[in-house]
Amino acid sequence: MIEIIKYPEKDKWETLSKRPTMDSTELQLKVQSIINEVESKGDEALYSFARLFDNVQLQSLAVTSNEISEATNLISEALKDAMLIAAENIETFHNAQFEEPIKINTIAGVECWRKSIGIEKVGLYIPGGSAPLFSTLLMLAIPAKIAGCKEIILCTPPDKSGNVHPAILHAAHITGVTKIFKVGGAQAIAAMAFGTDSIPKVHKIFGPGNQYVTCAKQIIQQTGVAIDMPAGPSEVLVIADETCNPSFVAADLLSQAEHGPDSQVVLLSNSEDILLKCKEELVDQLELLPRNSIAQLALQNSYFILLSSIDEAVSFSNTYAPEHLILACSNDEVIAEKVINAGSVFLGNYSPESAGDYASGTNHTLPTSGYARAYSGVSLDSFIKKITFQKLTKEGLLKLAPTIETMAEAEGLIAHKNAVSIRIKNTTHE
Amino acid sequence: MIEIIKYPEKDKWETLSKRPTMDSTELQLKVQSIINEVESKGDEALYSFARLFDNVQLQSLAVTSNEISEATNLISEALKDAMLIAAENIETFHNAQFEEPIKINTIAGVECWRKSIGIEKVGLYIPGGSAPLFSTLLMLAIPAKIAGCKEIILCTPPDKSGNVHPAILHAAHITGVTKIFKVGGAQAIAAMAFGTDSIPKVHKIFGPGNQYVTCAKQIIQQTGVAIDMPAGPSEVLVIADETCNPSFVAADLLSQAEHGPDSQVVLLSNSEDILLKCKEELVDQLELLPRNSIAQLALQNSYFILLSSIDEAVSFSNTYAPEHLILACSNDEVIAEKVINAGSVFLGNYSPESAGDYASGTNHTLPTSGYARAYSGVSLDSFIKKITFQKLTKEGLLKLAPTIETMAEAEGLIAHKNAVSIRIKNTTHE
Repeated sequence: MIEIIKYPEKDKWETLSKRPTMDSTELQLKVQSIINEVESKGDEALYSFARLFDNVQLQSLAVTSNEISEATNLISEALKDAMLIAAENIETFHNAQFEEPIKINTIAGVECWRKSIGIEKVGLYIPGGSAPLFSTLLMLAIPAKIAGCKEIILCTPPDKSGNVHPAILHAAHITGVTKIFKVGGAQAIAAMAFGTDSIPKVHKIFGPGNQYVTCAKQIIQQTGVAIDMPAGPSEVLVIADETCNPSFVAADLLSQAEHGPDSQVVLLSNSEDILLKCKEELVDQLELLPRNSIAQLALQNSYFILLSSIDEAVSFSNTYAPEHLILACSNDEVIAEKVINAGSVFLGNYSPESAGDYASGTNHTLPTSGYARAYSGVSLDSFIKKITFQKLTKEGLLKLAPTIETMAEAEGLIAHKNAVSIRIKNTTHE
Repeated sequence: MIEIIKYPEKDKWETLSKRPTMDSTELQLKVQSIINEVESKGDEALYSFARLFDNVQLQSLAVTSNEISEATNLISEALKDAMLIAAENIETFHNAQFEEPIKINTIAGVECWRKSIGIEKVGLYIPGGSAPLFSTLLMLAIPAKIAGCKEIILCTPPDKSGNVHPAILHAAHITGVTKIFKVGGAQAIAAMAFGTDSIPKVHKIFGPGNQYVTCAKQIIQQTGVAIDMPAGPSEVLVIADETCNPSFVAADLLSQAEHGPDSQVVLLSNSEDILLKCKEELVDQLELLPRNSIAQLALQNSYFILLSSIDEAVSFSNTYAPEHLILACSNDEVIAEKVINAGSVFLGNYSPESAGDYASGTNHTLPTSGYARAYSGVSLDSFIKKITFQKLTKEGLLKLAPTIETMAEAEGLIAHKNAVSIRIKNTTHE
């Protein structure tokens, strides 16, 4: 089943770190035509795509407040409680990310500062399908609310009866989503990017989705609407030494593998024995999984690597830049200090990825496909802009004037120089 | 010349806020073919594009240390001093943006934190042409250095003799750029995105450029390399009341207009008299400008708007979302509090945009074209990723377990649940 690669040469690491890609030319053409349709026909196109893709004739795109209160009755108290606890932890962690403006006098009379302001209108997308990802909605709507976004729109596809899963409606309700629409796929992204009669145009779009959604987000990004980050299949990399518990490691690898057939899981160790034990455990646990066939496909993209030391394993991991990194090692805190490329890191034997996926408080919307080399996961930062401000006194400008004038002249921008000189002349004449 | 629009209806504001756009289909095809050429032929393609576009047969793509020390002799002491002062202020302002990790216990036994880590390899692009934009190099290389980026690459086109402007080389030298290459245009962006024998592949690309450069950045962004932000022509919006100095306002508008024929300048006031005086001043000052013809073209895209109050002007400005916003008003600090969409804001009569362009310390790489609704300007944040970490104790996981298990089950992700259950079973058996 899963391949064990032993001591690969360092110049093979980059190749091993490459994620499977696919040609998207045809996909792009399809998605572009959906986007064009929504841009030109608005709501009419959305109703028609709902018939075509979701097999439903909708009466209205917007979810009613009645539907929301019914949803709350449809889910168990246990689930409501769990959502509340998770929401509280997510709120605690993201609240701590708020930054008060700090005013800096770079020189006397020159005061500069930055201020965080919530993006006015944001759009969240939550896919439908087999798993109702209400946890992702918590991860997006809670920081949006903390950031002070005034309008928080949710688009999610309806089922064949025209309903949205009650767990998603309840999560939207408790997090303060302002409007919910029964629209899925690339058409949902287009609707939020351009606006329709029913759906407001937003400034930034967040959330996971299938290849159509991902492609639509990339296309509308070119039109000036921001997106959370580029997306790819989910992945985990585990570094395990002889102190790990192979059954825990196998369970973590499988929790990633069940996400989708294109998920990737990688296990690194300095012990061949550990790799073999984890493999055994993996085979045993796999059999019992309801999403067994999905996980099996994912494991075909996956591999175990034997390396000469845990330090070398971290070094490989930094080349790979995993979305999730689990350090199932004795000196996890020392190793964590050496991580430079990863989305989210889980330390020790009792920090499974599931904790961060649901309830510890960290965000689970993370950079995949090696994007962690340059991108961060979603955080409060993702929902704000930082505007810079400056105020110079006459004296401050006088002091800075020769610097600005000299530089502007050297760049050949005389009007830039004049904007200072004209003020200085005026000041000295007073 | 410049049009004065009086009291436009609120439903016209969005249309007035639209920036001129152009069809880019043909451009994209051209740029894609340049990118393909660099990806497949590497250095060879770069030498050949230098012959074709820069009219020079280069001996080497890399700038030598000899060339750098010569450059330092070629520029005036005054300019060197000015650069040092500007660099110091930029450093002061960006240093203050550094965030120490804060560890949060979301609940007892569940510790979560974020850590800022510099992006390992970044690429800076500085255009050639009439104005050697060494100031932009300061704005990009200084935060890159503070962030701890290990490799800071600079690409900039050579002149016909194969040289780079000495002010650019000197700025690169004092800011700690690690490697400088004589490569311009879309080919420079492609070289940094894919790497060649001479030029290292980077994870994120920064810097302004013409339409080829901008288009190349958008294309390579789809391949997973990050970019600073989408780019468009530079712009300023000034809000002026009767306490403004019309000659200062006119000078500020012109300092923006001289950037390029596609720049846009907008003046808002609650006083027709002020608008007329500013217009008069504009005409007078325009005549004396060396870049008069460029500024004149830019003024054709520009307009003055009379509104009923300064509050209404701020409201219009928030719809427009200007790159630069100057508040030439008596109660500038009160008005600044109402700004929600802008790149950088300049308060009062003695804070010209030139101050921020060169030397006050704030960054001048800012969101244009209304992107300020969702994007921030370049800051230390642009050169780092924030990685999340978490460590749960056995007790912490025990406490969180029912929440995670309930949510995972409700999402139909049983392997996610198992990763917790298997640890709990193991713990209670101990």
